[in-house]
Amino acid sequence: MNGVSRFTLTRDHHCGELRIDHVGKTVVLSGWVQRRRDFGKLIFIDLRDRSGIVQVVFDPELIGTEAESVMEVADSLRNEYVVSVQGKVVARAENTINEKIPTGEIEVQAEKIEILNASKNPPFYIQDHIDVEENVRLKYRYLDLRRPEMLNTFVLRHKAIKFIRDFLDRENFLEVETPMLTRSTPEGARDYLVPSRLHPGEFYALPQSPQLFKQLLMVSGFERYFQVARCFRDEDLRADRQPEFTQLDIEQSFMSLPEFQALMERLMAEMFQHLLGVEIPRPFPRLTYKEAMDRYGSDKPDIRFGMELKDISDVVATSGFKVFRSTVEAGGKVKGINAKGCAGYSRKQIDELEQFAKRYGAKGLAWMAVNEDGIKSPIAKFFTDAEIEGILANLEAEQGDLLLFVADKPKVVADALGNLRLKLGKELGMIDESRFAFLWITEFPLLSYDEEEGRYVAEHHPFTMPMWEDLDKLTTSPAEVRAQAYDMVLNGYEIGGGSMRIFRREIQEAMFQALGFTMEEAWDKFGFLLEAFEYGTPPHGGIAFGIDRILMIMAGRQSLRDVIAFPKTSSGTDLMTQAPSDVSERQWRELHIRPEAAKEEVVK
Amino acid sequence: MNGVSRFTLTRDHHCGELRIDHVGKTVVLSGWVQRRRDFGKLIFIDLRDRSGIVQVVFDPELIGTEAESVMEVADSLRNEYVVSVQGKVVARAENTINEKIPTGEIEVQAEKIEILNASKNPPFYIQDHIDVEENVRLKYRYLDLRRPEMLNTFVLRHKAIKFIRDFLDRENFLEVETPMLTRSTPEGARDYLVPSRLHPGEFYALPQSPQLFKQLLMVSGFERYFQVARCFRDEDLRADRQPEFTQLDIEQSFMSLPEFQALMERLMAEMFQHLLGVEIPRPFPRLTYKEAMDRYGSDKPDIRFGMELKDISDVVATSGFKVFRSTVEAGGKVKGINAKGCAGYSRKQIDELEQFAKRYGAKGLAWMAVNEDGIKSPIAKFFTDAEIEGILANLEAEQGDLLLFVADKPKVVADALGNLRLKLGKELGMIDESRFAFLWITEFPLLSYDEEEGRYVAEHHPFTMPMWEDLDKLTTSPAEVRAQAYDMVLNGYEIGGGSMRIFRREIQEAMFQALGFTMEEAWDKFGFLLEAFEYGTPPHGGIAFGIDRILMIMAGRQSLRDVIAFPKTSSGTDLMTQAPSDVSERQWRELHIRPEAAKEEVVK
Repeated sequence: MNGVSRFTLTRDHHCGELRIDHVGKTVVLSGWVQRRRDFGKLIFIDLRDRSGIVQVVFDPELIGTEAESVMEVADSLRNEYVVSVQGKVVARAENTINEKIPTGEIEVQAEKIEILNASKNPPFYIQDHIDVEENVRLKYRYLDLRRPEMLNTFVLRHKAIKFIRDFLDRENFLEVETPMLTRSTPEGARDYLVPSRLHPGEFYALPQSPQLFKQLLMVSGFERYFQVARCFRDEDLRADRQPEFTQLDIEQSFMSLPEFQALMERLMAEMFQHLLGVEIPRPFPRLTYKEAMDRYGSDKPDIRFGMELKDISDVVATSGFKVFRSTVEAGGKVKGINAKGCAGYSRKQIDELEQFAKRYGAKGLAWMAVNEDGIKSPIAKFFTDAEIEGILANLEAEQGDLLLFVADKPKVVADALGNLRLKLGKELGMIDESRFAFLWITEFPLLSYDEEEGRYVAEHHPFTMPMWEDLDKLTTSPAEVRAQAYDMVLNGYEIGGGSMRIFRREIQEAMFQALGFTMEEAWDKFGFLLEAFEYGTPPHGGIAFGIDRILMIMAGRQSLRDVIAFPKTSSGTDLMTQAPSDVSERQWRELHIRPEAAKEEVVK
Repeated sequence: MNGVSRFTLTRDHHCGELRIDHVGKTVVLSGWVQRRRDFGKLIFIDLRDRSGIVQVVFDPELIGTEAESVMEVADSLRNEYVVSVQGKVVARAENTINEKIPTGEIEVQAEKIEILNASKNPPFYIQDHIDVEENVRLKYRYLDLRRPEMLNTFVLRHKAIKFIRDFLDRENFLEVETPMLTRSTPEGARDYLVPSRLHPGEFYALPQSPQLFKQLLMVSGFERYFQVARCFRDEDLRADRQPEFTQLDIEQSFMSLPEFQALMERLMAEMFQHLLGVEIPRPFPRLTYKEAMDRYGSDKPDIRFGMELKDISDVVATSGFKVFRSTVEAGGKVKGINAKGCAGYSRKQIDELEQFAKRYGAKGLAWMAVNEDGIKSPIAKFFTDAEIEGILANLEAEQGDLLLFVADKPKVVADALGNLRLKLGKELGMIDESRFAFLWITEFPLLSYDEEEGRYVAEHHPFTMPMWEDLDKLTTSPAEVRAQAYDMVLNGYEIGGGSMRIFRREIQEAMFQALGFTMEEAWDKFGFLLEAFEYGTPPHGGIAFGIDRILMIMAGRQSLRDVIAFPKTSSGTDLMTQAPSDVSERQWRELHIRPEAAKEEVVK
């Protein structure tokens, strides 16, 4: 009863671990043929397993009595065949040492070989830096994952999550598994639904996050909870979105926000130190939401470079340039960024920048180039010398700089210039790619006005605690209330977000009022949670980190699909298994549902 | 921006950690009021947090200037109020020491108190061993989880899963997260389906296990994989079933089965040693499926006690008792168990045992009581003295024993006597509840004949490797082929099951033939997996453990619901959140489905 009992060779070493110290030892290796080379009478194979690659040489003169059959087998090997090899570790001759691989000082002189399995010729080479269409990689994901850079990514992922668990365990957090078959909740993104067989017409929802359950665990007195949790959002997918994703969910009671933030900083800093060997300075910088929007035009700024947005509204408020003046008069803003050393950009280059800015809503992009012989700009003539000087001073302009301006509503200015800043930062090589720049964004707005619904909606969720000093405004000027909410940002990505939660009934009621709910409606929507909150809820709060995104940044990859073992495409398809798929009529009948539109009908 | 900034007291100690060494220290504690007692002018509260309970005393004479207001607050406290208390740790007087709690030598003399939150009177006391209907506990799960025995269970669960992860990490296993939105697969239990918004008429399925993905990871060369994975089965639920459950999923390549089993034994033994302090002898006993069925009438025997099934078919094959004789002639079995010391059972007691046996298909239960003055039995008259002697010898009967017999098809005999054995073992106190008796069941049948489908079906799944020595029978006598499949059994529960997998094409084809599939049908059902197997699949196999069940046994609980934080009832309902629930028409319309039957229509 032994799965490999029909094979005589039993692996006792791994390919990648062999070193000069092993010389003289007889070893048995198992793995995949990376490639085979014939060299006169000799056959060389590179043998690969999870630990790495080693060179095996088949020399008929050294094999002994079975030379003929061994050489015959060796000759039949093709890429990706699975074999076991027995042989002796020998030092390579000085001139054949391969310094590129850790096992390069030795090779294994084969004595015996067994083919465990054959392989068809794979659709792409099993090696790094291949230039293969992603759809092919996804269809043959099991082969894609064989490539060392993919394997290494998942080793890193395993280690990172292990590190997180060890850290939180040391800090007395309990990992608790919360349900996947949950109740559909209002006020969130679109749910994935699961029809119930035992309750006709009713549905479970897959969790968008364990938010409610983690708050309930605080009501339960668990005090410190975490979970590496799978979450689901049926939203339209982008390169950095997946229908299912992994979230590190953390919640605690009785801890002050500064303490909690310091703990989260230590978690991240120690993980990056441990896994990547980089030193992350603590405490992390903090920017309020307002500052971040003002200075970077983004609530997830990449602070690895400057080129901050400068407000010149005051300088141009009474200028002769009508576009700027009227924008300021209408309550808008005029801001600029300084593209250092880009004064020589061609008209075409500047046009391209303008097109880019327009994608983010800007109506145009004004510019000034600071040349040796003065300002070159289509709009310079509208300004007085003093105004020009004011603009240059504001943007700290020097000779050779290109200044770019957007005048619009504050949100449009932020979006357009914020994204232009990122684009230019990358193109001008201003970003130190080896750096990991963490920061906190704090004091987010609690509510935003939803024109469509004609009411305020929660920016985070309806249980987010307002800042104490803004509590009074909840009834008078809801838009001005700041939340005890915070995001952790890394290199321009939001990697985590959280808040302190409302835990007192009177504040929760004021919040629902601000959202335009009667208490009856509120109970209808969130009844069980509100009821739970009546039974001694401690002060609590937490955070949720996007594990996939953090791993993507750690592994230096551009797509979430590279850090998820079996990801889906932007249409939510698994190209390998072809999920989703048709199911039998019996299956959907048992669930008391009927698919409304067969595919054909939809196409019509 | 501090969630508790409106409170002045900051917790610096935990209730349960205070000891005689802390005497003289001023501490701030936060937690829940377990109970309040008034004693003259003094007020005592037991304050509870996650770490335990400590007594706090409010003595107006010791509080100082603010005595009046502090006493007023203390007087207003009710059970489950959340408070912070500042006070001095003092030693209790000798005669008031409470040895039942770790903090019983000290108490805290309160100086200040703040109520963080009030609480309604909870529907049951927050204490162990409550006698409350389970539905009430489930509805108020957040309060149920406050009870120390529940908290302790989840601390144990956290530690057990942590131990497993640490162990497997040391052994070079990589944890890889596999998808939750997968493809519905044939040949399994009933799937939970998830309608796709982007692919009208198509469905994802929630995974019954990560089986296919873990095998693909072996094709990928990950070599050693594990995952603590949520799995789903839409089956009819019993006390020991939940619609979603947690599985420890392990798969490896290039390892012999004995090596792998030894590793799994070490994992379990070290975990039980580490967490429960019990010594588990290794190697675990092994029984083949056949032996287990023969001796215990079960493929998951509880071997903490004897009372094995004894085959008396040979002895009674030619006897004068027609029921026994004709059963043997028809190819059935006659077996008995020996209920030691039960010769005095009343007719009524024996009738009850018979009724019990009938539930498992037995047509009757024959018996013999071995009394001082000979055999008492309604059937004794049908046997010769030699036959009686043979029966007694076979069952090692002594004076005072009660022998119980079932004659039927082997499966019915096994079921009825196997369950009777368990019932009697418990009732007679033969089971040492402090023992953990692990064993392996091996050599399971590969296939069983499905009368309904008119073909053989896989007992485990279609990728289970047959035993090498039985391979030839796959075409000639499929029912006799044993699988390289194994279960780990603990105290009568199957806690894990696995197999070595088919990794060679020719064996897989033979297997599909035995299952009555053409290769075309096989490709239709399992295409992507069969294709993957063409590209250099290593020998591999694995196991899946039921984490919930293991925890239930470790925690000494009777129900899976006690080891799952937010479990569902036997109708799949979460009584706290009332999932599943109605959803809006907009929601199901977007998914291109239509609920067929409203609840009312089904009832009609």
